[in-house]
Amino acid sequence: MLSKADNEFLTQSGPGTPMGDLLRRFWMPALLSEELPVRDGPPKKIKILGEDLLAFRSTDGRVGIVEPHCPHRGANLYYGRNEECGIRCAFHGWKFDVDGNCVDLPTSPPESTYKDTIKLLAYPTREWGDMIWVYMGPREKIPELPQLEMGLLPASSRYVTKKWQDCNWVQSVEGALDTAHFSFLHAVLAKDDVAARAALAKAAIADQATPDDRIRWIHNDPRPKFTILGHDAGLLIGAARKTDGADLYWRISQFLMPNHAYTPTAFPGEIYYGQCWVPADDGSCWIYTYCWHPDRPLSNAERAKFDGGFNVHAEVDDDYMPLRNLRNDYLIDRKVQKHTTFTGIEGVSEQDAAIQDSMGPIQDRTREHLGPTDVGVVEFRKLLMGGARSLQAGIEPKAAASANRYAVRAGGAVAAPAKNLETVMAERFGHARGYIGQQYGLGD
Amino acid sequence: MLSKADNEFLTQSGPGTPMGDLLRRFWMPALLSEELPVRDGPPKKIKILGEDLLAFRSTDGRVGIVEPHCPHRGANLYYGRNEECGIRCAFHGWKFDVDGNCVDLPTSPPESTYKDTIKLLAYPTREWGDMIWVYMGPREKIPELPQLEMGLLPASSRYVTKKWQDCNWVQSVEGALDTAHFSFLHAVLAKDDVAARAALAKAAIADQATPDDRIRWIHNDPRPKFTILGHDAGLLIGAARKTDGADLYWRISQFLMPNHAYTPTAFPGEIYYGQCWVPADDGSCWIYTYCWHPDRPLSNAERAKFDGGFNVHAEVDDDYMPLRNLRNDYLIDRKVQKHTTFTGIEGVSEQDAAIQDSMGPIQDRTREHLGPTDVGVVEFRKLLMGGARSLQAGIEPKAAASANRYAVRAGGAVAAPAKNLETVMAERFGHARGYIGQQYGLGD
Amino acid sequence: MLSKADNEFLTQSGPGTPMGDLLRRFWMPALLSEELPVRDGPPKKIKILGEDLLAFRSTDGRVGIVEPHCPHRGANLYYGRNEECGIRCAFHGWKFDVDGNCVDLPTSPPESTYKDTIKLLAYPTREWGDMIWVYMGPREKIPELPQLEMGLLPASSRYVTKKWQDCNWVQSVEGALDTAHFSFLHAVLAKDDVAARAALAKAAIADQATPDDRIRWIHNDPRPKFTILGHDAGLLIGAARKTDGADLYWRISQFLMPNHAYTPTAFPGEIYYGQCWVPADDGSCWIYTYCWHPDRPLSNAERAKFDGGFNVHAEVDDDYMPLRNLRNDYLIDRKVQKHTTFTGIEGVSEQDAAIQDSMGPIQDRTREHLGPTDVGVVEFRKLLMGGARSLQAGIEPKAAASANRYAVRAGGAVAAPAKNLETVMAERFGHARGYIGQQYGLGD
Repeated sequence: MLSKADNEFLTQSGPGTPMGDLLRRFWMPALLSEELPVRDGPPKKIKILGEDLLAFRSTDGRVGIVEPHCPHRGANLYYGRNEECGIRCAFHGWKFDVDGNCVDLPTSPPESTYKDTIKLLAYPTREWGDMIWVYMGPREKIPELPQLEMGLLPASSRYVTKKWQDCNWVQSVEGALDTAHFSFLHAVLAKDDVAARAALAKAAIADQATPDDRIRWIHNDPRPKFTILGHDAGLLIGAARKTDGADLYWRISQFLMPNHAYTPTAFPGEIYYGQCWVPADDGSCWIYTYCWHPDRPLSNAERAKFDGGFNVHAEVDDDYMPLRNLRNDYLIDRKVQKHTTFTGIEGVSEQDAAIQDSMGPIQDRTREHLGPTDVGVVEFRKLLMGGARSLQAGIEPKAAASANRYAVRAGGAVAAPAKNLETVMAERFGHARGYIGQQYGLGD
Repeated sequence: MLSKADNEFLTQSGPGTPMGDLLRRFWMPALLSEELPVRDGPPKKIKILGEDLLAFRSTDGRVGIVEPHCPHRGANLYYGRNEECGIRCAFHGWKFDVDGNCVDLPTSPPESTYKDTIKLLAYPTREWGDMIWVYMGPREKIPELPQLEMGLLPASSRYVTKKWQDCNWVQSVEGALDTAHFSFLHAVLAKDDVAARAALAKAAIADQATPDDRIRWIHNDPRPKFTILGHDAGLLIGAARKTDGADLYWRISQFLMPNHAYTPTAFPGEIYYGQCWVPADDGSCWIYTYCWHPDRPLSNAERAKFDGGFNVHAEVDDDYMPLRNLRNDYLIDRKVQKHTTFTGIEGVSEQDAAIQDSMGPIQDRTREHLGPTDVGVVEFRKLLMGGARSLQAGIEPKAAASANRYAVRAGGAVAAPAKNLETVMAERFGHARGYIGQQYGLGD
Repeated sequence: MLSKADNEFLTQSGPGTPMGDLLRRFWMPALLSEELPVRDGPPKKIKILGEDLLAFRSTDGRVGIVEPHCPHRGANLYYGRNEECGIRCAFHGWKFDVDGNCVDLPTSPPESTYKDTIKLLAYPTREWGDMIWVYMGPREKIPELPQLEMGLLPASSRYVTKKWQDCNWVQSVEGALDTAHFSFLHAVLAKDDVAARAALAKAAIADQATPDDRIRWIHNDPRPKFTILGHDAGLLIGAARKTDGADLYWRISQFLMPNHAYTPTAFPGEIYYGQCWVPADDGSCWIYTYCWHPDRPLSNAERAKFDGGFNVHAEVDDDYMPLRNLRNDYLIDRKVQKHTTFTGIEGVSEQDAAIQDSMGPIQDRTREHLGPTDVGVVEFRKLLMGGARSLQAGIEPKAAASANRYAVRAGGAVAAPAKNLETVMAERFGHARGYIGQQYGLGD
């Protein structure tokens, strides 16, 4: 339970807010690369951290992310022409490059130096891992890109999608870190009938030969025991459930500062999934979902499956709006809810969205009642709010300076009850916190 | 004419407002019974007096009306499962019965007493007269259900519908109590052509063999003389018009605290109509319309007629939204207005809605000019505002303690000019205020 | 660049604002005459200067523009009956004439004088130049109608249309006065292909036999030299561009207080165009576009062309909403933008709207950077804001008392470089400020 003031502190990310300042110390996905497919193509309006921005891909392939209004008379550069290494305002032809420099100002004579005094706000961008990233913080604090494994692999080994969500980014991250909810929200009631099999298949818990054990263990133990361990880039969140015997079934997530989370499902040889939450404004966010296989390319069949809404990938339209969303009640089917799945909503991603959106645009945390299974949520808030408070006191976030430490994995394991999380991690990933950077030459 | 402060006092009904406190001393219709047709069926979102609530019918047939957000993490129980005498949150399975008790809390061990400390806000409900009623006031002040005649009769003798209206509830009640407007708003211009006959038939003024006299009297006298008499449950409002001879044509309504009104039309042997206004928020309300015949069942043909929009019943869609409404300008037909009916809008209920909505979401009463025909409106405001002021001073409303005194009737009569309203009522209904409770064993 | 306070001062026109007071000293177009085609026809809701009003054409052909709410109980007279020289409220039959007098009050006895005390707010109206004009200022300050040439001519020689625009009226006027933007916003890229020819034809720059010179001159000189000259009714704004030789190509506009502007294109023998901006509220306006030929009737073919969206006439639907508008991104075609026209948006009027709307509902002038080509905008603001400040100090606007001085023309000319704007005007129009009133008997 938070005070009203703390809830606002946690959830507000606009310019000048403490949490907004913290987020602005990190690179944010701004677009999928596919959203700006061609050089000199149409610019695209975007909104990030409450700021309206314009993105365009220049003649040289670089991407500009800029303030959309022309400094001359305020016309929106969205209607401008993206041509010859710059975007030219449709009103009077003022032209700006991806760095915000005014490269042509035709209402002044060619010999005038007026244009050297005109600057368009432009944020640094990078293109990496099939996404366009933006850094919106102070220029002198610009960090390295976080070395997520999906970006270190060849493009053939990863797949990235995005979706809109109608709630504050924080409650959506909290939903991802709270893996206890798998026992209910994503549960399948009658796992032997055809519809239930299809639901399980879509949920991706069943994409291996013998997943029934895991499903049963999750179903039978709604009270996993949590262990949380910090590291330079974030938090390791382990949840241990009972199995049929003495062993424990561990589901282990990673939270990576300030807005990435890895799912806890993958057994060795399976596909890994992660998500990144980027606030549009305080009542909505974009969720970038990436998955990867460290050892092999993803097949076309797998990519088609992700596009159809699989695991935490959602089924979206051409504007990345989920087909099942707040406005159509997620197409909840009450008969399916009665007989087949716990929610009657199709898709793990959509089940998550329904519950997270249902808390309201910003969850009222003054009325919540947290318990032992919410410890991941509690530690996440401490890390985030502590980071924002430290930054206000002048202490820069350690994670921003630890780009290589983002090279981690998360997933599932079955282990003897005496083993603690560090031991389970060491056995599963070769490192107590799941670090795999040495495989990519990022040091030990 | 009211001051701005008095207008707000009169029209605001949210939690903590004086008028909201007064309304919360009475039972309110919350739903038609048909809206929760089956046990363990889908829950339904409702909004009453500015409060977002969730209604569900439990396994035992009882109805719960509760705060929609789960106390655990704030997920909306609307997505929950209505099963085995309670609604279970889809997020982590916390479960609540219709009284708001937490009956299962699976994230804590079975032996934990944590769930005994968790309570979901739940309001008392009753099901009576084909409606589900809710009481949203202090538990120790809970009154008896108002003994409206429609609820005392067998279900075969009544019919209940509901409709949405896009304005504050008070101006809509005022429209019902002001029976002077029948001379204009519901008037038919050319009563001898086919279209006019159809309009009259729909208006229900003509469902008797020889209604032409009443129509003519209403049309010829736009200045009825009003007499208002108080009683324990509300106000008796009589309006006397000239007839062709010396007699007066009385149209007599009942206002029953705090939000019921009976129409003034019924002659002996005719059907009686009443309405109840329930604020959704301050700019909209639900209107429950009930009609009944004290002496016989209503036929299927009559029920079909009500569903098609007859008398004060509106023609609505599956969500109880009127087919002719603010968003489509009530399908006003200016040719019909020129030649056939005074408004060009089809249906008495829709004509009322058009005029009442047209005042704005909340009528600006600082600019009105009331006259002698508005005395019913004036007395209604006095009763309501006086009741709210008294309650603020610690005096409970008498009507809430007078459930049996709601057993009254209202209707029309023709009487010699020397007879006053009390005499007319005594002759028409056997009681000076129209009380008929003795017929149902409710005392004299 | 304006301060935030000055920007609000310039753009706010509601009741009680300084600019609103200034605008209310002038007649405003309220409707096209065609919007109230028949006597006793349906009334029409309108909104002007932030005021919701109701317009109706009476039995005698006069137009009333009144407060829409009946003084009795606040019902909207829009649902009333327009009959026998007045509009009658549908609720209780109170009736008002076009001057706001209560001419029938049936809820009081015929002998009552109560109705003489009841008054409905009604603004004076005139019908002139195919428009219905309204004066919303103090009655004792009512001016003459501005003697625009289009209104002095027979109806056969003019054409008037209107369109909705989704931004504050001031930035839209500023777009019209800033004729430097023709070098970009309305430019055609490849003027020899078929699509480009069609675009040019629609833009009306090419409706003469040999317009190619003008197009080339506009294209080649994006830095016209401005000269601004004041006169009693407004401002003369001349912009001189280089031609192929020594001569200058002058494009000369008129701004007429407080909200008319004439386009700078017409050569002798061509059609003249003007526009008038009427704020609906501070974030939207109606633009009335009128064109005329001083010497001949306009043909049916020309009228059809205007309706199809030609020159500053827009292509609109039955409610005067532009077919290409903010909600559909002006149907921008990025391929056309790449190859054929500078914007990819069809129509000069729509290109203007796109750029003007794109500044936001109210342009943030605290961030603009004006230059030499913006001098017309600067002088316009000085005149308007100066007028509003003077009025606050008790000095009435001179233009309101100078109705005859609105009889001016504007247009294009080619002249020797030594000639100043006054000389060019004298040669082109016979008067240094373009006054042609003597041709209509309005004095010298």
